[in-house]
Amino acid sequence: MIRIGIFGYGNLGKGVECAVAKNPDMELVGVFTRRDPASVAVKTPGVKVYREEALQDMTDEIDVLVLCGGSATDLPQQTPKYASLYNVVDSFDTHARIPEHFANVDAAAKAAGKTCVISCGWDPGMFSLNRLYANCILPDGKDYTFWGKGVSQGHSDAVRRIDGVKDCRQYTIPVEEAMQAVREGRQPELTTRQKHVRECFVVAEEGADLARIESEIKNMPNYFADYDTTVHFITEEEMARDHSGLPHGGSVIRTGVTGFENEHTHVVEYKLTLDSNPEFTGSVIAAYARAVYRMNQEGMTGCKTVFDIAPAYLSNFSGEELRAHLL
Amino acid sequence: MIRIGIFGYGNLGKGVECAVAKNPDMELVGVFTRRDPASVAVKTPGVKVYREEALQDMTDEIDVLVLCGGSATDLPQQTPKYASLYNVVDSFDTHARIPEHFANVDAAAKAAGKTCVISCGWDPGMFSLNRLYANCILPDGKDYTFWGKGVSQGHSDAVRRIDGVKDCRQYTIPVEEAMQAVREGRQPELTTRQKHVRECFVVAEEGADLARIESEIKNMPNYFADYDTTVHFITEEEMARDHSGLPHGGSVIRTGVTGFENEHTHVVEYKLTLDSNPEFTGSVIAAYARAVYRMNQEGMTGCKTVFDIAPAYLSNFSGEELRAHLL
Repeated sequence: MIRIGIFGYGNLGKGVECAVAKNPDMELVGVFTRRDPASVAVKTPGVKVYREEALQDMTDEIDVLVLCGGSATDLPQQTPKYASLYNVVDSFDTHARIPEHFANVDAAAKAAGKTCVISCGWDPGMFSLNRLYANCILPDGKDYTFWGKGVSQGHSDAVRRIDGVKDCRQYTIPVEEAMQAVREGRQPELTTRQKHVRECFVVAEEGADLARIESEIKNMPNYFADYDTTVHFITEEEMARDHSGLPHGGSVIRTGVTGFENEHTHVVEYKLTLDSNPEFTGSVIAAYARAVYRMNQEGMTGCKTVFDIAPAYLSNFSGEELRAHLL
Repeated sequence: MIRIGIFGYGNLGKGVECAVAKNPDMELVGVFTRRDPASVAVKTPGVKVYREEALQDMTDEIDVLVLCGGSATDLPQQTPKYASLYNVVDSFDTHARIPEHFANVDAAAKAAGKTCVISCGWDPGMFSLNRLYANCILPDGKDYTFWGKGVSQGHSDAVRRIDGVKDCRQYTIPVEEAMQAVREGRQPELTTRQKHVRECFVVAEEGADLARIESEIKNMPNYFADYDTTVHFITEEEMARDHSGLPHGGSVIRTGVTGFENEHTHVVEYKLTLDSNPEFTGSVIAAYARAVYRMNQEGMTGCKTVFDIAPAYLSNFSGEELRAHLL
């Protein structure tokens, strides 16, 4: 059994817990939190909740520690720190800071003989992998990534910070005509506005100026100004009834040409349709936790990404079994 | 530069040649054939055609030899033989014999310090990879593979062997309703007949009994009897005008559930739409030829499959570049 610890018990931590329960070769040893452990109720029977500090003394009881904190401030500090004690997996997704994060984690992990994977999930993660494979196969081509339909937590949070907004759910929606043009191999040049639209469901405070809120949303730089955005004002009851899920997904598409006259076009598409973004992300992380555990046993230490890990390490089946049943 | 040799210059060999031309870090050193070299005209300027026997003396000039023979009789003999002289890539696709082929190639390659990839292409190959990744991420789920619309060379050949048939092109076509049910996460049980239909375009010899030919096709065991098959008789001119290409493709789909109540469904689909089956297969092989070359330089010898190769080995970019641009 691979003994898993989870640090951070928000949506992602709960998603990892679900995933561990689906893998018969894994067991959840404990959930670690910066909150009062008594305030945290986990779903897996018999699993204890510990304060973060307990991680200093549990290195003999945990094979892989999954870090479920945020990329802005938690992971840059936590992942290098715990890479010196555990094999760890995180889902760091601040693209611009990946080189620095990788270097910090790599140094800590190598010094301690541990194995780590950063930026694990579906984007970055499975989408990155599919970009890489398709780029290597079709060097003369063009990449497209479409997200959604799905809930963007960052955009929902941004709207919630507007004065007069009690709650918001923001859906990112790919533009069907743009995807169609890409899938036909036409390699269109697409602006930000042509690729995705944004739809907001907003619960406003009583008496708030709805026209001002709508205008503030639509003109918010970076988040909404470059998109066509629709705003719907709804009640708290409608929010709870119709928008409680966290669906997401999207497509990575590469189209490219082969032949001495570039006469043949090929389209490679990897598409995800996910009822629960955190549970799918947690499922990817669980598979890479297995890889990290096995690579560490083979002496392959340091920081890795999905690019550095041979697919067979993700599976609990042997090479013979994989060749017989999946090749 | 990675110096590539191609042994066998049929559709696949020509596809590999096209792919090498698209990769700036590769050069084609020679094409090797069992035919009279004077009868073989290659497309790449300056590339020579050699008899197979020349391979005995060119080990210093070729980094990776791509074997483009057939799985039935060529590769079981050729791949182990040349694995003792070269790093090799083949596209062996006789599933039942993969364990034996792997063992033979592995023994030869390890003894010679060479690195080999067998069963490389899109199925087996990229489809296998996507089955593996999706199985590891969603252990509680179900796999589906749909092929087409595309030309099946095996089925076309089978029809050509019928008395009175001059030529045939057979298209394998997935059943749209079946794919739709799968994509909705309903995990249907599908019979062979429910997943694909077959369509044959046949040029008959003058005076042939068309009703008998059609009946022989539709009742042919293994190839057609378990499918709904449509037969069209056409002229040689129509065959040349409308059916000269070798398009193919298909989808690997896995749907699975997560959550403590299995309340969330996820759909992972990898879809290929290919204008030229052999050129895309050749493009996959070229990327794995790079991996084989690099793994051999790092001392990783023996027989590999796509499962055993970390994705980064396929790329001519460094780890830093991949993390910065594709993660």
